[in-house]
Amino acid sequence: MTRFALTVEYDGRPFMGWQRQKHGPSVQQAIEEAAATILGETVQVQAAGRTDAGVHATGMRAHLDTSRTIAPFRLMEALNARLRPAPVAILACDEVADDWHARFSCIARHYEYRIVSRRAPLTFEAGLAWRLAMSLDAAAMQEGAAHLLGRHDFTTFRSAHCQADSPLRTLDRLEVIAAGERISVFASARSFLHHQVRSMVGCLALVGQGKWHPDDMRVALEARDRTALGHNAPPDGLFFTRADYPAD
Amino acid sequence: MTRFALTVEYDGRPFMGWQRQKHGPSVQQAIEEAAATILGETVQVQAAGRTDAGVHATGMRAHLDTSRTIAPFRLMEALNARLRPAPVAILACDEVADDWHARFSCIARHYEYRIVSRRAPLTFEAGLAWRLAMSLDAAAMQEGAAHLLGRHDFTTFRSAHCQADSPLRTLDRLEVIAAGERISVFASARSFLHHQVRSMVGCLALVGQGKWHPDDMRVALEARDRTALGHNAPPDGLFFTRADYPAD
Repeated sequence: MTRFALTVEYDGRPFMGWQRQKHGPSVQQAIEEAAATILGETVQVQAAGRTDAGVHATGMRAHLDTSRTIAPFRLMEALNARLRPAPVAILACDEVADDWHARFSCIARHYEYRIVSRRAPLTFEAGLAWRLAMSLDAAAMQEGAAHLLGRHDFTTFRSAHCQADSPLRTLDRLEVIAAGERISVFASARSFLHHQVRSMVGCLALVGQGKWHPDDMRVALEARDRTALGHNAPPDGLFFTRADYPAD
Repeated sequence: MTRFALTVEYDGRPFMGWQRQKHGPSVQQAIEEAAATILGETVQVQAAGRTDAGVHATGMRAHLDTSRTIAPFRLMEALNARLRPAPVAILACDEVADDWHARFSCIARHYEYRIVSRRAPLTFEAGLAWRLAMSLDAAAMQEGAAHLLGRHDFTTFRSAHCQADSPLRTLDRLEVIAAGERISVFASARSFLHHQVRSMVGCLALVGQGKWHPDDMRVALEARDRTALGHNAPPDGLFFTRADYPAD
Protein backbone atom coordinates (compact mmCIF):
# COMPACT_ATOMS: atom_id res chain seq x y z
CA MET A 1 0.00 0.00 0.00
CA THR A 2 1.35 3.38 -0.99
CA ARG A 3 -0.04 6.69 0.28
CA PHE A 4 0.11 9.79 -1.93
CA ALA A 5 -0.40 13.35 -0.72
CA LEU A 6 -2.04 15.67 -3.23
CA THR A 7 -2.14 19.45 -3.48
CA VAL A 8 -5.44 20.33 -5.14
CA GLU A 9 -6.79 23.51 -6.72
CA TYR A 10 -10.48 23.73 -7.57
CA ASP A 11 -13.07 26.22 -8.67
CA GLY A 12 -16.00 25.46 -6.38
CA ARG A 13 -18.71 26.94 -8.62
CA PRO A 14 -19.97 23.72 -10.22
CA PHE A 15 -19.63 21.62 -7.08
CA MET A 16 -21.81 20.85 -4.07
CA GLY A 17 -18.63 21.13 -2.03
CA TRP A 18 -15.64 18.92 -1.31
CA GLN A 19 -17.53 16.01 0.20
CA ARG A 20 -19.46 13.36 -1.76
CA GLN A 21 -23.17 14.16 -1.96
CA LYS A 22 -26.07 12.14 -3.29
CA HIS A 23 -27.66 15.17 -4.94
CA GLY A 24 -24.83 16.62 -7.00
CA PRO A 25 -21.18 16.65 -8.07
CA SER A 26 -18.40 17.00 -5.51
CA VAL A 27 -14.66 17.51 -5.77
CA GLN A 28 -14.04 14.35 -3.75
CA GLN A 29 -16.10 12.26 -6.17
CA ALA A 30 -14.35 13.78 -9.21
CA ILE A 31 -10.91 12.88 -7.86
CA GLU A 32 -11.96 9.46 -6.57
CA GLU A 33 -13.46 8.51 -9.93
CA ALA A 34 -10.42 9.72 -11.86
CA ALA A 35 -8.10 7.80 -9.52
CA ALA A 36 -10.22 4.64 -9.68
CA THR A 37 -10.05 4.65 -13.49
CA ILE A 38 -6.28 5.16 -13.48
CA LEU A 39 -5.48 2.65 -10.71
CA GLY A 40 -8.13 0.06 -11.50
CA GLU A 41 -9.31 -0.15 -7.90
CA THR A 42 -11.65 1.69 -5.55
CA VAL A 43 -9.97 4.77 -4.14
CA GLN A 44 -10.92 6.97 -1.19
CA VAL A 45 -9.64 10.53 -0.97
CA GLN A 46 -9.42 12.39 2.35
CA ALA A 47 -8.94 16.17 2.49
CA ALA A 48 -7.62 18.61 5.08
CA GLY A 49 -10.95 20.44 5.03
CA ARG A 50 -14.44 19.78 3.74
CA THR A 51 -15.32 23.00 1.93
CA ASP A 52 -18.98 23.94 1.37
CA ALA A 53 -20.80 24.29 -1.94
CA GLY A 54 -19.36 27.14 -3.99
CA VAL A 55 -16.18 27.43 -1.88
CA HIS A 56 -12.85 27.24 -3.74
CA ALA A 57 -9.33 26.00 -3.06
CA THR A 58 -5.95 27.06 -4.34
CA GLY A 59 -4.01 24.71 -2.07
CA MET A 60 -6.19 21.99 -0.55
CA ARG A 61 -4.27 18.96 0.68
CA ALA A 62 -5.61 15.44 0.38
CA HIS A 63 -4.37 11.86 0.37
CA LEU A 64 -5.21 8.55 -1.23
CA ASP A 65 -3.95 4.98 -0.87
CA THR A 66 -3.30 2.48 -3.62
CA SER A 67 -2.02 -1.09 -3.89
CA ARG A 68 -0.63 -0.29 -7.37
CA THR A 69 2.87 0.87 -8.18
CA ILE A 70 2.93 4.24 -9.88
CA ALA A 71 5.35 7.17 -9.88
CA PRO A 72 3.93 10.31 -8.15
CA PHE A 73 4.50 12.46 -11.24
CA ARG A 74 2.73 9.96 -13.48
CA LEU A 75 -0.21 9.76 -11.08
CA MET A 76 -0.47 13.58 -11.05
CA GLU A 77 -0.38 13.81 -14.84
CA ALA A 78 -2.93 11.02 -15.24
CA LEU A 79 -5.28 12.58 -12.67
CA ASN A 80 -5.10 15.96 -14.42
CA ALA A 81 -5.81 14.35 -17.80
CA ARG A 82 -8.79 12.40 -16.37
CA LEU A 83 -10.21 15.32 -14.39
CA ARG A 84 -10.68 17.48 -17.49
CA PRO A 85 -12.84 19.40 -18.16
CA ALA A 86 -13.79 19.67 -14.46
CA PRO A 87 -12.09 22.74 -12.91
CA VAL A 88 -9.96 20.61 -10.58
CA ALA A 89 -6.19 20.47 -10.90
CA ILE A 90 -3.60 18.43 -9.02
CA LEU A 91 -0.70 20.82 -8.44
CA ALA A 92 1.56 18.37 -6.61
CA CYS A 93 1.68 14.68 -5.77
CA ASP A 94 4.14 13.10 -3.34
CA GLU A 95 4.56 9.71 -1.72
CA VAL A 96 4.14 10.02 2.06
CA ALA A 97 4.35 7.78 5.13
CA ASP A 98 1.37 5.52 5.84
CA ASP A 99 0.49 7.50 8.97
CA TRP A 100 0.39 10.88 7.21
CA HIS A 101 -3.24 11.94 7.15
CA ALA A 102 -4.46 15.01 5.22
CA ARG A 103 -7.04 15.80 7.89
CA PHE A 104 -5.72 14.44 11.17
CA SER A 105 -2.04 15.34 10.66
CA CYS A 106 -2.90 18.90 9.67
CA ILE A 107 -1.72 21.48 12.23
CA ALA A 108 -2.90 24.70 10.53
CA ARG A 109 -5.45 25.72 7.93
CA HIS A 110 -5.38 28.95 5.96
CA TYR A 111 -8.17 30.72 4.12
CA GLU A 112 -8.48 33.85 2.02
CA TYR A 113 -11.83 35.58 1.63
CA ARG A 114 -12.02 37.93 -1.36
CA ILE A 115 -14.27 40.98 -1.42
CA VAL A 116 -14.59 43.37 -4.36
CA SER A 117 -16.09 46.71 -3.51
CA ARG A 118 -17.64 48.27 -6.64
CA ARG A 119 -20.94 49.25 -8.23
CA ALA A 120 -20.67 47.15 -11.36
CA PRO A 121 -21.47 43.43 -11.28
CA LEU A 122 -18.49 41.09 -11.47
CA THR A 123 -17.51 39.58 -14.81
CA PHE A 124 -14.34 37.46 -14.54
CA GLU A 125 -14.86 36.92 -10.82
CA ALA A 126 -18.60 36.24 -10.71
CA GLY A 127 -18.85 33.48 -8.09
CA LEU A 128 -15.18 33.97 -7.16
CA ALA A 129 -15.53 37.01 -4.89
CA TRP A 130 -18.18 38.75 -2.81
CA ARG A 131 -19.15 42.00 -4.47
CA LEU A 132 -20.30 44.81 -2.22
CA ALA A 133 -21.64 47.89 -4.00
CA MET A 134 -20.44 50.31 -1.31
CA SER A 135 -16.91 51.25 -0.30
CA LEU A 136 -15.53 49.62 2.83
CA ASP A 137 -13.34 51.01 5.63
CA ALA A 138 -10.58 48.40 5.69
CA ALA A 139 -8.85 49.98 8.70
CA ALA A 140 -12.04 49.67 10.77
CA MET A 141 -12.40 46.06 9.60
CA GLN A 142 -8.85 45.32 10.74
CA GLU A 143 -9.57 46.92 14.12
CA GLY A 144 -12.67 44.74 14.47
CA ALA A 145 -10.80 41.62 13.35
CA ALA A 146 -8.25 42.01 16.16
CA HIS A 147 -10.96 41.32 18.75
CA LEU A 148 -11.32 37.74 17.51
CA LEU A 149 -7.66 36.72 17.68
CA GLY A 150 -6.70 34.10 20.23
CA ARG A 151 -8.57 31.30 21.96
CA HIS A 152 -12.32 31.87 22.30
CA ASP A 153 -15.72 30.23 22.31
CA PHE A 154 -16.80 30.98 18.71
CA THR A 155 -20.42 29.87 19.12
CA THR A 156 -21.64 33.13 17.55
CA PHE A 157 -19.68 32.38 14.39
CA ARG A 158 -20.68 28.72 14.13
CA SER A 159 -23.25 27.12 11.84
CA ALA A 160 -26.24 25.42 13.47
CA HIS A 161 -25.08 22.31 11.56
CA CYS A 162 -21.56 22.35 12.96
CA GLN A 163 -20.59 18.90 14.22
CA ALA A 164 -17.52 19.87 16.24
CA ASP A 165 -17.45 18.70 19.87
CA SER A 166 -16.38 22.08 21.18
CA PRO A 167 -16.94 25.70 20.08
CA LEU A 168 -13.48 26.62 21.37
CA ARG A 169 -10.98 27.53 18.67
CA THR A 170 -7.70 29.44 18.55
CA LEU A 171 -7.63 32.02 15.80
CA ASP A 172 -4.00 32.74 14.87
CA ARG A 173 -4.54 35.25 12.07
CA LEU A 174 -7.42 37.44 10.91
CA GLU A 175 -5.95 40.11 8.70
CA VAL A 176 -7.67 42.56 6.37
CA ILE A 177 -5.57 43.67 3.39
CA ALA A 178 -6.94 46.24 0.93
CA ALA A 179 -5.63 47.03 -2.56
CA GLY A 180 -7.83 49.48 -4.45
CA GLU A 181 -11.35 48.07 -4.74
CA ARG A 182 -10.17 44.66 -3.55
CA ILE A 183 -10.16 43.56 0.09
CA SER A 184 -8.90 40.18 1.22
CA VAL A 185 -9.43 38.76 4.68
CA PHE A 186 -6.80 36.15 5.62
CA ALA A 187 -7.71 33.67 8.36
CA SER A 188 -5.49 31.01 9.94
CA ALA A 189 -6.15 28.50 12.71
CA ARG A 190 -5.42 24.90 13.60
CA SER A 191 -9.03 24.25 12.69
CA PHE A 192 -12.23 26.22 12.15
CA LEU A 193 -15.85 25.66 13.07
CA HIS A 194 -18.38 25.16 10.26
CA HIS A 195 -19.06 28.55 8.60
CA GLN A 196 -16.65 30.29 10.96
CA VAL A 197 -14.66 32.18 8.32
CA ARG A 198 -17.77 33.26 6.39
CA SER A 199 -19.47 34.34 9.62
CA MET A 200 -16.49 36.38 10.76
CA VAL A 201 -16.16 38.01 7.31
CA GLY A 202 -19.88 38.77 7.16
CA CYS A 203 -19.60 40.73 10.43
CA LEU A 204 -16.38 42.44 9.34
CA ALA A 205 -18.22 43.63 6.21
CA LEU A 206 -20.79 45.29 8.50
CA VAL A 207 -17.91 47.04 10.25
CA GLY A 208 -16.47 48.08 6.88
CA GLN A 209 -19.81 49.59 5.90
CA GLY A 210 -20.07 51.50 9.18
CA LYS A 211 -23.15 49.54 10.27
CA TRP A 212 -21.16 48.03 13.13
CA HIS A 213 -18.50 49.64 15.30
CA PRO A 214 -15.23 47.63 15.41
CA ASP A 215 -15.98 46.86 19.09
CA ASP A 216 -19.22 45.17 18.03
CA MET A 217 -17.06 42.25 16.91
CA ARG A 218 -16.10 41.70 20.54
CA VAL A 219 -19.70 42.11 21.66
CA ALA A 220 -20.82 39.49 19.13
CA LEU A 221 -18.04 37.10 20.16
CA GLU A 222 -18.83 37.45 23.86
CA ALA A 223 -22.54 36.84 23.26
CA ARG A 224 -21.64 33.20 22.40
CA ASP A 225 -24.98 33.08 20.62
CA ARG A 226 -25.66 32.49 16.92
CA THR A 227 -28.42 35.12 16.98
CA ALA A 228 -25.73 37.75 17.71
CA LEU A 229 -24.28 37.06 14.24
CA GLY A 230 -24.60 40.06 11.95
CA HIS A 231 -24.27 38.38 8.58
CA ASN A 232 -22.91 35.21 7.01
CA ALA A 233 -20.83 36.03 3.92
CA PRO A 234 -21.63 34.02 0.75
CA PRO A 235 -19.41 31.08 -0.23
CA ASP A 236 -18.28 32.85 -3.44
CA GLY A 237 -15.30 34.69 -1.95
CA LEU A 238 -13.88 31.87 0.17
CA PHE A 239 -10.67 30.09 -0.83
CA PHE A 240 -8.90 27.33 1.12
CA THR A 241 -5.31 28.36 0.41
CA ARG A 242 -3.00 26.16 2.46
CA ALA A 243 -2.72 23.38 5.03
CA ASP A 244 0.36 22.90 7.19
CA TYR A 245 1.85 19.64 8.46
CA PRO A 246 4.60 18.97 11.03
CA ALA A 247 7.04 17.65 8.43
CA ASP A 248 6.70 20.64 6.09
CA MET B 1 -28.15 64.43 -28.92
CA THR B 2 -25.98 63.45 -25.99
CA ARG B 3 -22.82 61.38 -26.28
CA PHE B 4 -21.78 59.08 -23.44
CA ALA B 5 -18.34 57.52 -23.05
CA LEU B 6 -18.32 54.09 -21.43
CA THR B 7 -15.56 52.11 -19.73
CA VAL B 8 -16.34 48.45 -20.33
CA GLU B 9 -15.06 45.23 -18.76
CA TYR B 10 -15.88 41.92 -20.41
CA ASP B 11 -14.99 38.27 -20.23
CA GLY B 12 -14.54 37.34 -23.89
CA ARG B 13 -15.10 33.61 -23.46
CA PRO B 14 -18.76 33.46 -24.55
CA PHE B 15 -18.41 36.06 -27.32
CA MET B 16 -17.43 36.02 -30.99
CA GLY B 17 -15.51 39.21 -30.23
CA TRP B 18 -16.38 42.86 -29.77
CA GLN B 19 -17.94 43.43 -33.19
CA ARG B 20 -21.44 42.35 -34.22
CA GLN B 21 -21.44 39.02 -36.04
CA LYS B 22 -24.21 37.17 -37.81
CA HIS B 23 -23.08 33.79 -36.45
CA GLY B 24 -22.89 34.43 -32.71
CA PRO B 25 -23.06 36.78 -29.73
CA SER B 26 -20.84 39.85 -29.54
CA VAL B 27 -20.12 42.38 -26.82
CA GLN B 28 -21.24 45.22 -29.12
CA GLN B 29 -24.60 43.57 -29.69
CA ALA B 30 -25.09 42.91 -25.95
CA ILE B 31 -24.51 46.58 -25.08
CA GLU B 32 -26.49 47.93 -28.05
CA GLU B 33 -29.51 45.79 -27.17
CA ALA B 34 -29.35 46.74 -23.49
CA ALA B 35 -29.09 50.44 -24.40
CA ALA B 36 -31.91 50.23 -26.95
CA THR B 37 -34.25 48.73 -24.34
CA ILE B 38 -33.35 51.40 -21.78
CA LEU B 39 -33.46 54.37 -24.15
CA GLY B 40 -36.31 53.23 -26.40
CA GLU B 41 -34.39 53.95 -29.58
CA THR B 42 -31.82 52.27 -31.80
CA VAL B 43 -28.33 52.73 -30.38
CA GLN B 44 -24.93 52.19 -31.98
CA VAL B 45 -21.88 51.60 -29.81
CA GLN B 46 -18.35 52.30 -31.09
CA ALA B 47 -15.29 50.95 -29.27
CA ALA B 48 -11.61 51.92 -29.11
CA GLY B 49 -10.66 48.48 -30.40
CA ARG B 50 -12.43 45.53 -31.97
CA THR B 51 -11.17 42.56 -29.99
CA ASP B 52 -11.29 39.07 -31.49
CA ALA B 53 -13.30 36.08 -30.31
CA GLY B 54 -12.19 34.98 -26.85
CA VAL B 55 -10.25 38.19 -26.13
CA HIS B 56 -11.11 40.06 -22.92
CA ALA B 57 -11.18 43.65 -21.70
CA THR B 58 -10.70 45.22 -18.29
CA GLY B 59 -10.85 48.79 -19.58
CA MET B 60 -12.30 49.01 -23.09
CA ARG B 61 -13.62 52.48 -23.99
CA ALA B 62 -16.72 52.97 -26.13
CA HIS B 63 -19.34 55.61 -26.86
CA LEU B 64 -23.00 55.84 -27.73
CA ASP B 65 -25.37 58.66 -28.70
CA THR B 66 -28.92 59.17 -27.53
CA SER B 67 -31.68 61.72 -28.07
CA ARG B 68 -33.04 60.95 -24.58
CA THR B 69 -32.18 62.76 -21.39
CA ILE B 70 -30.62 60.49 -18.80
CA ALA B 71 -28.04 60.98 -16.06
CA PRO B 72 -24.75 59.13 -16.75
CA PHE B 73 -24.91 57.24 -13.45
CA ARG B 74 -28.47 56.11 -14.14
CA LEU B 75 -27.52 54.95 -17.63
CA MET B 76 -24.59 52.97 -16.20
CA GLU B 77 -26.74 51.31 -13.56
CA ALA B 78 -29.49 50.49 -16.06
CA LEU B 79 -26.99 49.02 -18.54
CA ASN B 80 -25.45 46.84 -15.86
CA ALA B 81 -28.87 45.61 -14.76
CA ARG B 82 -29.88 44.82 -18.37
CA LEU B 83 -26.58 43.19 -19.31
CA ARG B 84 -26.88 40.50 -16.66
CA PRO B 85 -26.11 37.63 -16.76
CA ALA B 86 -23.73 38.34 -19.66
CA PRO B 87 -20.18 38.86 -18.32
CA VAL B 88 -20.11 42.51 -19.43
CA ALA B 89 -19.92 45.36 -16.92
CA ILE B 90 -20.00 49.12 -17.43
CA LEU B 91 -17.40 50.46 -14.99
CA ALA B 92 -17.86 54.16 -15.82
CA CYS B 93 -20.19 56.34 -17.87
CA ASP B 94 -19.56 60.04 -18.61
CA GLU B 95 -21.12 62.64 -20.85
CA VAL B 96 -18.58 63.78 -23.45
CA ALA B 97 -18.37 66.31 -26.29
CA ASP B 98 -20.07 65.39 -29.58
CA ASP B 99 -16.72 65.10 -31.33
CA TRP B 100 -15.21 62.68 -28.80
CA HIS B 101 -14.89 59.35 -30.57
CA ALA B 102 -13.91 56.14 -28.77
CA ARG B 103 -11.98 54.90 -31.79
CA PHE B 104 -10.80 57.98 -33.71
CA SER B 105 -9.94 60.16 -30.70
CA CYS B 106 -7.92 57.37 -29.08
CA ILE B 107 -4.19 58.17 -28.94
CA ALA B 108 -2.90 55.02 -27.20
CA ARG B 109 -4.06 51.46 -26.64
CA HIS B 110 -2.77 49.16 -23.93
CA TYR B 111 -2.91 45.38 -23.71
CA GLU B 112 -1.83 42.78 -21.20
CA TYR B 113 -1.17 39.21 -22.28
CA ARG B 114 -1.24 36.69 -19.42
CA ILE B 115 0.80 33.48 -19.49
CA VAL B 116 0.78 30.87 -16.73
CA SER B 117 3.69 28.47 -16.81
CA ARG B 118 2.77 25.23 -15.05
CA ARG B 119 2.10 21.52 -15.64
CA ALA B 120 -1.43 21.40 -14.27
CA PRO B 121 -4.37 22.58 -16.41
CA LEU B 122 -5.90 25.91 -15.43
CA THR B 123 -9.02 25.95 -13.28
CA PHE B 124 -10.07 29.52 -12.37
CA GLU B 125 -8.25 30.94 -15.39
CA ALA B 126 -9.19 28.43 -18.08
CA GLY B 127 -9.74 30.65 -21.13
CA LEU B 128 -8.30 33.63 -19.25
CA ALA B 129 -4.60 32.90 -19.67
CA TRP B 130 -2.30 30.92 -21.95
CA ARG B 131 -0.94 27.93 -20.07
CA LEU B 132 2.47 26.67 -21.09
CA ALA B 133 3.57 23.43 -19.43
CA MET B 134 7.27 24.36 -19.43
CA SER B 135 9.09 27.07 -17.51
CA LEU B 136 9.95 30.25 -19.43
CA ASP B 137 13.04 32.46 -19.33
CA ALA B 138 11.42 35.86 -18.76
CA ALA B 139 14.75 37.72 -19.00
CA ALA B 140 15.36 36.29 -22.47
CA MET B 141 11.79 37.21 -23.45
CA GLN B 142 12.39 40.79 -22.31
CA GLU B 143 15.62 40.90 -24.31
CA GLY B 144 13.76 39.69 -27.39
CA ALA B 145 10.90 42.15 -26.83
CA ALA B 146 13.27 45.12 -26.91
CA HIS B 147 13.98 44.45 -30.61
CA LEU B 148 10.41 45.34 -31.52
CA LEU B 149 10.20 48.71 -29.78
CA GLY B 150 9.87 51.80 -31.97
CA ARG B 151 8.56 52.39 -35.49
CA HIS B 152 8.70 49.37 -37.79
CA ASP B 153 7.01 47.52 -40.60
CA PHE B 154 5.20 44.81 -38.58
CA THR B 155 4.13 42.70 -41.58
CA THR B 156 5.53 39.54 -39.90
CA PHE B 157 3.23 40.07 -36.91
CA ARG B 158 0.10 40.91 -38.91
CA SER B 159 -2.89 38.72 -39.68
CA ALA B 160 -3.60 37.89 -43.33
CA HIS B 161 -7.02 39.45 -42.67
CA CYS B 162 -5.66 42.75 -41.37
CA GLN B 163 -7.42 45.67 -43.06
CA ALA B 164 -5.00 48.45 -42.09
CA ASP B 165 -3.65 50.59 -44.94
CA SER B 166 -0.08 50.38 -43.70
CA PRO B 167 1.94 47.76 -41.79
CA LEU B 168 3.91 50.56 -40.10
CA ARG B 169 3.27 50.91 -36.40
CA THR B 170 5.11 52.49 -33.47
CA LEU B 171 5.41 50.15 -30.51
CA ASP B 172 5.86 52.22 -27.35
CA ARG B 173 6.00 49.42 -24.78
CA LEU B 174 6.59 45.68 -24.87
CA GLU B 175 7.48 44.61 -21.37
CA VAL B 176 7.71 41.15 -19.85
CA ILE B 177 6.99 40.98 -16.13
CA ALA B 178 7.26 37.68 -14.26
CA ALA B 179 5.90 36.83 -10.81
CA GLY B 180 6.32 33.18 -9.87
CA GLU B 181 4.60 31.00 -12.47
CA ARG B 182 2.84 34.02 -13.99
CA ILE B 183 4.26 36.08 -16.86
CA SER B 184 2.50 39.14 -18.24
CA VAL B 185 3.49 40.88 -21.46
CA PHE B 186 2.40 44.52 -21.54
CA ALA B 187 2.05 46.15 -24.97
CA SER B 188 1.27 49.80 -25.76
CA ALA B 189 0.95 51.66 -29.06
CA ARG B 190 -1.19 54.31 -30.70
CA SER B 191 -2.72 51.42 -32.63
CA PHE B 192 -1.95 47.80 -33.42
CA LEU B 193 -2.30 45.64 -36.52
CA HIS B 194 -4.74 42.73 -36.44
CA HIS B 195 -3.24 39.88 -34.34
CA GLN B 196 -0.11 41.95 -33.66
CA VAL B 197 -0.03 41.46 -29.89
CA ARG B 198 -0.81 37.74 -30.08
CA SER B 199 1.81 37.28 -32.81
CA MET B 200 4.48 39.13 -30.85
CA VAL B 201 3.65 37.14 -27.68
CA GLY B 202 3.66 33.84 -29.59
CA CYS B 203 7.23 34.52 -30.74
CA LEU B 204 8.30 35.73 -27.29
CA ALA B 205 7.05 32.43 -25.86
CA LEU B 206 9.41 30.62 -28.26
CA VAL B 207 12.23 32.77 -26.89
CA GLY B 208 11.13 31.96 -23.34
CA GLN B 209 11.26 28.24 -24.12
CA GLY B 210 14.75 28.54 -25.63
CA LYS B 211 13.50 27.55 -29.10
CA TRP B 212 14.35 31.03 -30.39
CA HIS B 213 17.30 33.24 -29.50
CA PRO B 214 16.25 36.75 -28.37
CA ASP B 215 17.83 38.09 -31.60
CA ASP B 216 15.43 35.94 -33.63
CA MET B 217 12.76 38.51 -32.77
CA ARG B 218 14.70 41.07 -34.81
CA VAL B 219 15.26 38.56 -37.63
CA ALA B 220 11.52 37.85 -37.75
CA LEU B 221 10.68 41.57 -37.72
CA GLU B 222 13.14 42.37 -40.50
CA ALA B 223 11.81 39.53 -42.66
CA ARG B 224 8.57 41.57 -43.08
CA ASP B 225 6.94 38.30 -44.03
CA ARG B 226 4.10 36.47 -42.26
CA THR B 227 5.82 33.13 -42.92
CA ALA B 228 8.65 34.27 -40.60
CA LEU B 229 6.17 34.25 -37.71
CA GLY B 230 7.02 31.62 -35.12
CA HIS B 231 3.68 31.23 -33.42
CA ASN B 232 0.43 33.11 -32.86
CA ALA B 233 -0.58 33.04 -29.19
CA PRO B 234 -4.20 32.01 -28.44
CA PRO B 235 -6.81 34.68 -27.66
CA ASP B 236 -7.27 33.35 -24.10
CA GLY B 237 -4.55 35.41 -22.45
CA LEU B 238 -5.23 38.74 -24.18
CA PHE B 239 -6.81 41.65 -22.26
CA PHE B 240 -7.50 45.14 -23.62
CA THR B 241 -6.68 47.11 -20.48
CA ARG B 242 -6.82 50.82 -21.34
CA ALA B 243 -7.33 53.43 -24.03
CA ASP B 244 -5.94 56.97 -23.74
CA TYR B 245 -7.48 60.21 -25.03
CA PRO B 246 -6.02 63.73 -25.27
CA ALA B 247 -8.33 65.13 -22.59
CA ASP B 248 -7.51 62.44 -20.01
